Amino acid sequence: MISTAERDAMRRAIRLAALGRGSTSPNPVVGCVVLTPDGEIAGEGHHAYAGGPHAEVAALARAGERARGGTAVVTLEPCAHTGRTGPCTSALLAAGIARVVYGVADPNPVAAGGADALRAAGVEVEFLPDPEAERVNAAWLTYARARRPHVTWKFAATLDGRSAAADGTSQWITSPAAREDVHRLRAESDAIVAGVGTVLADDPLLTARPSGRAARRAPLRVVLDSDARTPLTARVLDAQAPTLVAVAEDAEPGPLECRAAVVRLPRAAGRGIDPGALLEELYRREVVGVFLEGGPTLAGSFLAGGYVDRVVAYLAPTLLGSGRAALGDAGVATLAEAHRLRIEDVTPVGPDLRVIAVPAAKEEE
Amino acid sequence: MISTAERDAMRRAIRLAALGRGSTSPNPVVGCVVLTPDGEIAGEGHHAYAGGPHAEVAALARAGERARGGTAVVTLEPCAHTGRTGPCTSALLAAGIARVVYGVADPNPVAAGGADALRAAGVEVEFLPDPEAERVNAAWLTYARARRPHVTWKFAATLDGRSAAADGTSQWITSPAAREDVHRLRAESDAIVAGVGTVLADDPLLTARPSGRAARRAPLRVVLDSDARTPLTARVLDAQAPTLVAVAEDAEPGPLECRAAVVRLPRAAGRGIDPGALLEELYRREVVGVFLEGGPTLAGSFLAGGYVDRVVAYLAPTLLGSGRAALGDAGVATLAEAHRLRIEDVTPVGPDLRVIAVPAAKEEE
Repeated sequence: MISTAERDAMRRAIRLAALGRGSTSPNPVVGCVVLTPDGEIAGEGHHAYAGGPHAEVAALARAGERARGGTAVVTLEPCAHTGRTGPCTSALLAAGIARVVYGVADPNPVAAGGADALRAAGVEVEFLPDPEAERVNAAWLTYARARRPHVTWKFAATLDGRSAAADGTSQWITSPAAREDVHRLRAESDAIVAGVGTVLADDPLLTARPSGRAARRAPLRVVLDSDARTPLTARVLDAQAPTLVAVAEDAEPGPLECRAAVVRLPRAAGRGIDPGALLEELYRREVVGVFLEGGPTLAGSFLAGGYVDRVVAYLAPTLLGSGRAALGDAGVATLAEAHRLRIEDVTPVGPDLRVIAVPAAKEEE
Repeated sequence: MISTAERDAMRRAIRLAALGRGSTSPNPVVGCVVLTPDGEIAGEGHHAYAGGPHAEVAALARAGERARGGTAVVTLEPCAHTGRTGPCTSALLAAGIARVVYGVADPNPVAAGGADALRAAGVEVEFLPDPEAERVNAAWLTYARARRPHVTWKFAATLDGRSAAADGTSQWITSPAAREDVHRLRAESDAIVAGVGTVLADDPLLTARPSGRAARRAPLRVVLDSDARTPLTARVLDAQAPTLVAVAEDAEPGPLECRAAVVRLPRAAGRGIDPGALLEELYRREVVGVFLEGGPTLAGSFLAGGYVDRVVAYLAPTLLGSGRAALGDAGVATLAEAHRLRIEDVTPVGPDLRVIAVPAAKEEE
């Protein structure tokens, strides 16, 4: 039986977990609320950065003696392993916690087993599967379960799906408010990926510049550039953030290697870089969340490969009727093969509309 | 000074006005709430069909003696002319109404002057400009002010703006719920317009078949068919509703004239029918609200001509990456020339999203 206080604590813990977005990779975001035996909040905490205290430890520290005999409500199953910090199970036992409620089972084989360990030590453990607790940790859960980074594809388009006018003009389709929102989402990711076509056309910085707060850490900039065409003067190669240029195995990067990290990856069917190979490489580099921008062709190849976990569409209330489409060939020949999504959220952002959707198939997994 | 009771009555009157949608053409939709001198609702009414009692008369009939010394709150300035029914100003005076509040001035030169006539008879008259009262009557106000029908362009597309897949499959991009919503909007219009391309490709009925209620009257079906290619077996020519086929002046309709009303109209720059000429023709036929469907080319020519007053987009949460775009050439060469809209409403319809937008320029007129 889950009490109302515990349900409320889970909602609160999810909000706390969200505070860690963008700074905990390769760890999950986690929030924890410790309740006294009477169901009052004794302390709360979240995992703020990799290497820092886990959520449970932070919450227990705030609760102090009031935790004894109480309940810890955690968004994710407490870990039972010693990484950069000690196992949370030990901390919970040492604090005298009598009951633990968690919202998502830990899929990480190294860290899992926390619930069993706690039960074996006499703690009452309750699993309260929570879709919101899943969603707040979607990036890390994909990373842990699929052993590849979670990919968010962002695009900006008119209401009729164009991302540039007939003459190629594309700045700006969407409003300053939408662009500010993009910087916030970039800051929550670990890598920002674009194709060399976008670099050549727009010369973007590909940095996260959210207003109102300093970015805690600069996401890795990644350019997919099979033929090593990135100009040495490209702004994406500046010193503001690290940059990785992925070139094809047969390409000759030359002096590019002095300006950025260069990785050689296989081509997909003789064309651009294979997106699956890129994601493998990024997984090795402990990139949990990828923010995919720039290029209808690039987006099409990620979609066709089944690598898009979330779509964020900024739709401007304008109509063009001609010009570049927001999405290029995505491996769909007939309507029955369309990539089906489920709308998760619709929010007005300035005069524009932000639509967040996830693959309908992922949903049912 | 407008009282709270009067403001509330205006909200109610607007909802009443909306009940008339689809059956009052060529008259406006109008709602009226009659308040006692103490501000209590004495009676309410709306204009239900052309030739039927006006909203004021219906509300006064319900209010009876309680109207004496009271206030009539009306969405539109009461008429001062005798059409199929007597002038509302006389009815208001006969009922002893002491005060009239209205939300939109009557732009119709024949019917206008109601406010002045009432004032001259000693009634206190207050104009409370109300954007919602404008919106509920948007079709008729365009009809009266611009002397042409109001045009709603409806399209169904994927999130990336496609209305068919690469192989031409397009049934069904959107859900049954979205299609049902389309039938409701068709039923609120006076004419449903499509291009012959849509007739040849999909053989649509172009009738309004809203579930849950009988259509009060079948909207006119209009096919733009410059070269008179509509097959005699097309479903749009069946007996369910009247059909008008617009052919070019140089076309030879032949036996088509036995199956539908045929009108000859000029071509636009040697191509399809000039949309402006079509709207002139429909205005002559007292068509107030046009529901434009079918055909990215047709939609583009209406947009380019500045004839689209409202856009209703049904966006399915799917991605195609190829196939026909929802909108064809709309006279836009560069981003600065984009047709700018303002989003008026966003509503989930089944799994899809319905976005209603109006031209930003219209807004400022």
